[in-house]
Amino acid sequence: MKFFERLKADAAPQWAGYTRHAFVKQLGDGTLPLECFKHYLVQDYLFLIQFARAYALAVYKSPSLVDMRRSLEGVKAILDVELDLHVELCSQWDMQRSDLENAPEDTPTMAYTRFVLDAGMSGDLLDLQAALAPCILGYAEIGARLKGEGANRGDNPYGRWIEEYSGEQYQDVAQGFADWFDDTANQVLTGHRYPRVLSLFEKACRLESDFWQMGLNAKG
Amino acid sequence: MKFFERLKADAAPQWAGYTRHAFVKQLGDGTLPLECFKHYLVQDYLFLIQFARAYALAVYKSPSLVDMRRSLEGVKAILDVELDLHVELCSQWDMQRSDLENAPEDTPTMAYTRFVLDAGMSGDLLDLQAALAPCILGYAEIGARLKGEGANRGDNPYGRWIEEYSGEQYQDVAQGFADWFDDTANQVLTGHRYPRVLSLFEKACRLESDFWQMGLNAKG
Amino acid sequence: MKFFERLKADAAPQWAGYTRHAFVKQLGDGTLPLECFKHYLVQDYLFLIQFARAYALAVYKSPSLVDMRRSLEGVKAILDVELDLHVELCSQWDMQRSDLENAPEDTPTMAYTRFVLDAGMSGDLLDLQAALAPCILGYAEIGARLKGEGANRGDNPYGRWIEEYSGEQYQDVAQGFADWFDDTANQVLTGHRYPRVLSLFEKACRLESDFWQMGLNAKG
Amino acid sequence: MKFFERLKADAAPQWAGYTRHAFVKQLGDGTLPLECFKHYLVQDYLFLIQFARAYALAVYKSPSLVDMRRSLEGVKAILDVELDLHVELCSQWDMQRSDLENAPEDTPTMAYTRFVLDAGMSGDLLDLQAALAPCILGYAEIGARLKGEGANRGDNPYGRWIEEYSGEQYQDVAQGFADWFDDTANQVLTGHRYPRVLSLFEKACRLESDFWQMGLNAKG
Repeated sequence: MKFFERLKADAAPQWAGYTRHAFVKQLGDGTLPLECFKHYLVQDYLFLIQFARAYALAVYKSPSLVDMRRSLEGVKAILDVELDLHVELCSQWDMQRSDLENAPEDTPTMAYTRFVLDAGMSGDLLDLQAALAPCILGYAEIGARLKGEGANRGDNPYGRWIEEYSGEQYQDVAQGFADWFDDTANQVLTGHRYPRVLSLFEKACRLESDFWQMGLNAKG
Repeated sequence: MKFFERLKADAAPQWAGYTRHAFVKQLGDGTLPLECFKHYLVQDYLFLIQFARAYALAVYKSPSLVDMRRSLEGVKAILDVELDLHVELCSQWDMQRSDLENAPEDTPTMAYTRFVLDAGMSGDLLDLQAALAPCILGYAEIGARLKGEGANRGDNPYGRWIEEYSGEQYQDVAQGFADWFDDTANQVLTGHRYPRVLSLFEKACRLESDFWQMGLNAKG
Repeated sequence: MKFFERLKADAAPQWAGYTRHAFVKQLGDGTLPLECFKHYLVQDYLFLIQFARAYALAVYKSPSLVDMRRSLEGVKAILDVELDLHVELCSQWDMQRSDLENAPEDTPTMAYTRFVLDAGMSGDLLDLQAALAPCILGYAEIGARLKGEGANRGDNPYGRWIEEYSGEQYQDVAQGFADWFDDTANQVLTGHRYPRVLSLFEKACRLESDFWQMGLNAKG
Repeated sequence: MKFFERLKADAAPQWAGYTRHAFVKQLGDGTLPLECFKHYLVQDYLFLIQFARAYALAVYKSPSLVDMRRSLEGVKAILDVELDLHVELCSQWDMQRSDLENAPEDTPTMAYTRFVLDAGMSGDLLDLQAALAPCILGYAEIGARLKGEGANRGDNPYGRWIEEYSGEQYQDVAQGFADWFDDTANQVLTGHRYPRVLSLFEKACRLESDFWQMGLNAKG
């Protein structure tokens, strides 16, 4: 079993709480209030900036050139591609780049991102990956599931979001991450470490749930 | 004007939101539900462990032996004294050390502590101090104000908490921190940096408010 | 005056000791023993890996997206381009990629690279740049000077090295770094900090000299 | 077998090169030129300051309160005790505290200390301990061996140094460190990691040898 599958099984309640959150359901059936989605999008932009820092930290912490290059792909994906996609997506709803960059960080944004950064800095590459995993792999699972349910139908205002995360490009990125995570676990995981790594994974799932909830709470 | 006073004036809404939070008022007049206080105490124990890490980071980041020794006092204060005081305080309400150590970290606890750690790691000693300051100096201000209002009267179940933070020992620690913060700002602050340092201070105040709110929310 | 020019003037002996080291002279007149150059090349490969980590650290420590992207260019330049150029250059002298990757790090390689990494981690972006600057800007100055002296003439076995560092591409990278360094200094330098930043710059020059000397010492 | 014994056996040449270095022999038979010892002492003072930072980093990186407190002992030992002992020892040879604090760091001092700090920051607690171990445990072995050989006899000008490191207090500190190192290895070591941890240990031994050699080279 892949290491990610093992964590997912052992953190089943947290994983379900995150990937089947009400925000996700409403995104799938198109009932999510637009103001909730917009608040989420803005915070997700700020979130990505911190995640680029986390991947840069992974370059710094990588014990080999192979790991360094794998980490670098994550930094490039965010700074060279994803942030611009976000800006483009936001422009659909009349939000400008400056609206994104000047928005104040909400608490759940700070909570998850700084947790990842500290887990990575204080631990090793495996700890960093365990804290990053729910985001990368959860979005892939959510995107694929919603698409499988036909949620990307034409009249869903959030169809484009679903297309992006269910698309081949993102799914490949997620698969690559899962493989890399697996390789790292095979190299450095011990029985003693497992509960701690699981705890990082669980906390990250919980912090992702809080991030969705922040979106729902944005309803006036 | 001391650097701390300047920040407090420029972050007046955030400072008031934190130091005059409903949790603080109810602590002062003794109406705070016990379950709220107990939840706060447990999380504050977990918070202190991370703050000890933040002070240790300050030792690592100190540019001089003088700064290293000032930082070390913070680590010692927590690991050698404050944690045990917390255990003692908690024993009043039948909570054991193991209850504290095994409690799961709540989101606001992770949010504030990891924010401080990342601010310090990514920036310099001034950034770290700016993120630490609301906690250390805010508790001193709250303690002194509540005592001045007579809130430490005998029938207040939280009188001992007020005594601790209004007491000479804690007030001296806070004064020492304010002086150190001032010295650092005199050495490395520029006009360009000020908005960023202020933003760290404001965010830390906001995260402290969320920490109080977490306590209030614990009411069943 | 650019910040780099100020440091260079104030660290004149260390700068001269580094940029006019005997290794450089012999590289220019083609008298450098091949074994010295080869030892240098291998160690420079290992050095670059650590420098990629240092640029990744700069991404992590960047206070703005603009700074993050400037830092990222440094990581990409090394991991996507320079390491392969090194492998290609080395193949001229029958050294394979595996020879480079498996070589043990010599002390001067560890000394300079870990010094840069620690300066950056414990300080802020300016500290990191001050420790990186002698390498990036010194190589540009050395390359340009040697080329101006005609040292890249056809019979100089080290002509290609000189071409690389005097070439427009590298000179542009160096100019971009100098501008970035200047911007950072304009933002965060104070009079109090200057001696410390100068000390980082001087130490880095000294560690670069030791790096050249390591090359010379490789003569059997 | 203790983890330290395993590393020592696998890094036998590097361990011998360090613990049986000519500097150590001359220290034992009293023939070490005073200027060599004095240069060493000054650099060792600067070295200790960086080692205090490394122990503080260990507090930051500790996964448990137990580990945090063990690390804190190392910071306290240096900042509260050892630095002052050094000042006192140096005063025997008319060197003042200010001579120590203002001395420029020599390359081998920077090389070893920054190597340790980076190993610890980029890795986990085991990596940090592996880089610290040669210093703490090597001095204990050298001190005990020289004392066993009677090198601390009255007419050896370096008898006091030998007394210090062969004394019960230092030997206990070293034993405590070895136990802690062992505990950490039992928790997080994997077969895959071993070569990398061994490499950190070997490099640290090599950097210690260079540190002794720096002392010998100080002879005018």
